[in-house]
Amino acid sequence: MVPHLITALTGPINELEQRILDSTPAIERWFRLEWMEHTPPFYCSVDIRNAGFKLAPVDTNLFPGGWNNLTQPMLPLAVQSAMAAIEKICPEAKNLLLIPENHSRNTFYLANVAQLQRIFHMAGLNVRVGSVDPEIKETKTIQLPNGDELTLEPVVRSKRRLGLKNFDPCTILLNNDLSAGAPGILEDLHEQYLLPPLHAGWSVRRKSRHFQSYEEVSKRFGKLLGIDPWLIHPMFAKCGEVDFAEGAGMDCLQTNVDALLTKVRRKYKEYGINEKPFVVVKADNGTYGMGIMTVHDAAELTSLNRKSRNKMAVVKDGQPVHDVIIQEGVLTAERMHDAMAEPVVYMMDRYVVGGFYRVHADRGPDENLNAPGSRFVPLAFAESTHLPQHGMKPGASAPNRFYMYGVIGRLALVAASYELEATDPEAEVY
Amino acid sequence: MVPHLITALTGPINELEQRILDSTPAIERWFRLEWMEHTPPFYCSVDIRNAGFKLAPVDTNLFPGGWNNLTQPMLPLAVQSAMAAIEKICPEAKNLLLIPENHSRNTFYLANVAQLQRIFHMAGLNVRVGSVDPEIKETKTIQLPNGDELTLEPVVRSKRRLGLKNFDPCTILLNNDLSAGAPGILEDLHEQYLLPPLHAGWSVRRKSRHFQSYEEVSKRFGKLLGIDPWLIHPMFAKCGEVDFAEGAGMDCLQTNVDALLTKVRRKYKEYGINEKPFVVVKADNGTYGMGIMTVHDAAELTSLNRKSRNKMAVVKDGQPVHDVIIQEGVLTAERMHDAMAEPVVYMMDRYVVGGFYRVHADRGPDENLNAPGSRFVPLAFAESTHLPQHGMKPGASAPNRFYMYGVIGRLALVAASYELEATDPEAEVY
Repeated sequence: MVPHLITALTGPINELEQRILDSTPAIERWFRLEWMEHTPPFYCSVDIRNAGFKLAPVDTNLFPGGWNNLTQPMLPLAVQSAMAAIEKICPEAKNLLLIPENHSRNTFYLANVAQLQRIFHMAGLNVRVGSVDPEIKETKTIQLPNGDELTLEPVVRSKRRLGLKNFDPCTILLNNDLSAGAPGILEDLHEQYLLPPLHAGWSVRRKSRHFQSYEEVSKRFGKLLGIDPWLIHPMFAKCGEVDFAEGAGMDCLQTNVDALLTKVRRKYKEYGINEKPFVVVKADNGTYGMGIMTVHDAAELTSLNRKSRNKMAVVKDGQPVHDVIIQEGVLTAERMHDAMAEPVVYMMDRYVVGGFYRVHADRGPDENLNAPGSRFVPLAFAESTHLPQHGMKPGASAPNRFYMYGVIGRLALVAASYELEATDPEAEVY
Repeated sequence: MVPHLITALTGPINELEQRILDSTPAIERWFRLEWMEHTPPFYCSVDIRNAGFKLAPVDTNLFPGGWNNLTQPMLPLAVQSAMAAIEKICPEAKNLLLIPENHSRNTFYLANVAQLQRIFHMAGLNVRVGSVDPEIKETKTIQLPNGDELTLEPVVRSKRRLGLKNFDPCTILLNNDLSAGAPGILEDLHEQYLLPPLHAGWSVRRKSRHFQSYEEVSKRFGKLLGIDPWLIHPMFAKCGEVDFAEGAGMDCLQTNVDALLTKVRRKYKEYGINEKPFVVVKADNGTYGMGIMTVHDAAELTSLNRKSRNKMAVVKDGQPVHDVIIQEGVLTAERMHDAMAEPVVYMMDRYVVGGFYRVHADRGPDENLNAPGSRFVPLAFAESTHLPQHGMKPGASAPNRFYMYGVIGRLALVAASYELEATDPEAEVY
C-alpha cells in the first residue's frame, strides 16, 4: 500500500518527479562523482515531507533505528549494502560489536537492534550486542514480541580496546546517538574502527550545521536539474543562548521566526500556494522527536505556557537546550486513510535500502509525526526505490515516487557527509 | 519452487552446507580479502552441479545471457550491483553502449539484452544497444514476446572511438563472447572502457585455464573450511592437437579420459559412492553448450560415429576445436518433478544477484543441460542468496542452499579473476 497524495496531480511535485525521472542518468552520475570526493556516513535515515508543492528532508539521523520496519524483500539489499560498507571501511573485519541505546526495555527499539544484528551477520560478521549502560552488569537475553531474541552483554574496556567477555571486535558499530555525550568508555579506541565517529553523536551535531550543508547541496543539485532549490530545501535560521525555562533569548527567536515566516510567505505567493505558512522550532541538538514546536506566528512565543516551555527546555537524556533551529515548516500532504504519513528513507553506505511511512492519525499536517501515539504505524515502502518506471504519468507510479524519495534522501546523505567532514575534530587542516 | 534434491539428507553436501553456514563470517571475510587483491570480472554466471555428494561449478561464463530469467525481486539487487560496478570502474560514465551477440533473431536472447539495458538504465546510465554484426546496417526496433521492445543500432567506428550515430559512450559493455575472435572494430579503443576486456572472449579463453585457477582457489578454500577440495572441485585434464574430424590426437584423449576415470573411481571408493563415474569432454574454447560429450569409458572414443565427431569438431561461430578439456563429470541430483535441474548463479561485480535453475526433462543426470529442448525451463531461485537461515536443518532450507550456491559461484568468480589476470596481454610483468 502506498499513501494517497492529496495534492492535485498537476502540482509542482509532479513536475519535480518528472524532472528527476528524466534526469536519472545525470543524477546518478552526480552522486557517483560526489562519492569519489566524499565518504558517505556508515548508515543514515532521513525524514522527508512531501507537501505536494515541495519536498524536503526535515531530519537526518546518523544512528538510525527502525530497521525492523523495512520489508523482508529489502533485507537482501541491506545485506549487500552492509557488505559494501564493511568491505570499504574494514575488509579484514571478523567481529562486530553493536552498541545500542541504553534504554534497553523498549522492545520496538530492541527489534531494530536484532534486525541490525541479523543484517551484519548475513553480511558475514560475528555480531554481538554490547551495552554501554552502566546498569547492565551481566548478560541478559530478551525475548521480543516478534519472536526474535536479543542477547545484551556488558562491555569490557581494556586500556586500548573495547569488547565483551571473550569477544574482541575490530569494529564497533554505534546505534546509540550519544545525546548525553560520548561516554569515556568510547574514547581513545585508536586500534578499533568506531562507526559512525563520535562527532556524529548529538552531543556534537547541530541540526543547523547539517542544514547549512544541505542548503549548499540543494543549490548545486537545483542547478543540475534546473529547478528552484527551494522546492527541495527547507529554509532555516538559528538562535543560540536560548533558555526556554527562564525565557531568555526569546527576542532572537521571535525576530527569526518572524523573518522566516515572511520569507516563506513570499515563496508561497511566488508559487500561488494558498496554505498558511508555519515554522518549526527545534532544539538544535534534539532527537527522538523531542524539543519540537510548530509556530504559525511569532506572537505565539510570547504566550508560551509553562508546559510548552518545559517541553522545549530539555531533550533526550536530559540535555538542556541552548541552541535552536527555526526551520520552514513543510506540510505533509500524504494520507493513509485519514492519518498523516511521512516517508522515512533508509540508507547504508551510499545505497538506498528502502523506507517506510510514519503514519500518525492523531497529528495534523503541520505537526511532528515522530511522537508517541497509539496509532503510530510504520508502513514499509511497497516497492523498491531502485526501480523507477520511465514513461509513467507523473504522480501515478509508486516506484517513481520512491525513487524520488531515494534521491532526496541521498541529497541529505551527501549533506551529512559534508557536515561530518567539516566537524571532524581530527581533520587535517590544509 | 525449489527443485527436490534426490540424495539422502545425510549426504556429504549437507555436511558441506552446514560447514559453509557455520563459517559464514570466515567465508565472507575471505572473499573481502580476495577482492582487496584482485578485481572481479564485471559480470559472470556460473553453472553449478549438485550431485548430493559433491557440488562444483562446471562452466563459468564471462558474458552471461539469461538475465531475463531472474525474478523481479532480484532486479533491485542487480541495479545496486551495477551501480557498485560502474562506480568502481568508471564513475564519470554517462553513456553505456551495450554490444549483444550477432544472432539477433533469438528473442529469448534479446529479452536478456533488454533486461541488461533496463538494469543499467536504472543504475543511472543512458544505455543504447549497438550491434557489431556487419549485416546490421540500420536501426531496427524489435518487439519481444514478453512485451519489451529493443532498439538495435549499427555501431559507428571513428579512429579512436566506437559509438552510435549521435551517441558517444565512455563505456562499452560486451554481451558478446567473441567466439570468432575480437572484430577489428573493437580493437585499439584506448579512450573508452571496454568491459569485459577482449581477452575474456572465447577466442582467447580456455576452460582448462579457468579450472586451473579454480583448482588453486578450491584448495585454499578447502583449507579454510577444513574440507577435501574435491567436494567442490571437478578434476580435469586437457589435450591439445585434437582433430575430431580427422581422428587425430585421439590417443591423448583416450589416455587422459582413462586416467581421469581412474581418479574419479578412486574418489568414489573413498567416499563410498555407488555411482558410475563419467567424464565430460568439452571443447576448451567452447560455449553455448556446444562441443560437449559425456564419456563413461575411454573405449567409447574409438567408436565415435561421424555425427558425434562432427558435433565435437566445430563450436560456436564455426570455430574449429583443437584443444579439449576432460572434466570429471558431476551428476545432477536435483529434480523438478522428473526433469533434471541445475542451478546457475548470476553475479555482477563481487555480488551474487540471484540465479535460476535450468530444467530439462529430456536429459539424463550425466548430460549437459545447456541444450535445445522443448522442455527447457528457467526456474528463478525462489529466494535471495543473501539470507542464510542459521539453525535450520541442513538440506531443509532453500535460502541456505542458495547461499551455498552463491559461495560456490563466487569461488568460480575469484578463479575467473585470477584467470583474467594471468591471461591479460597488457599485464605488466614484474
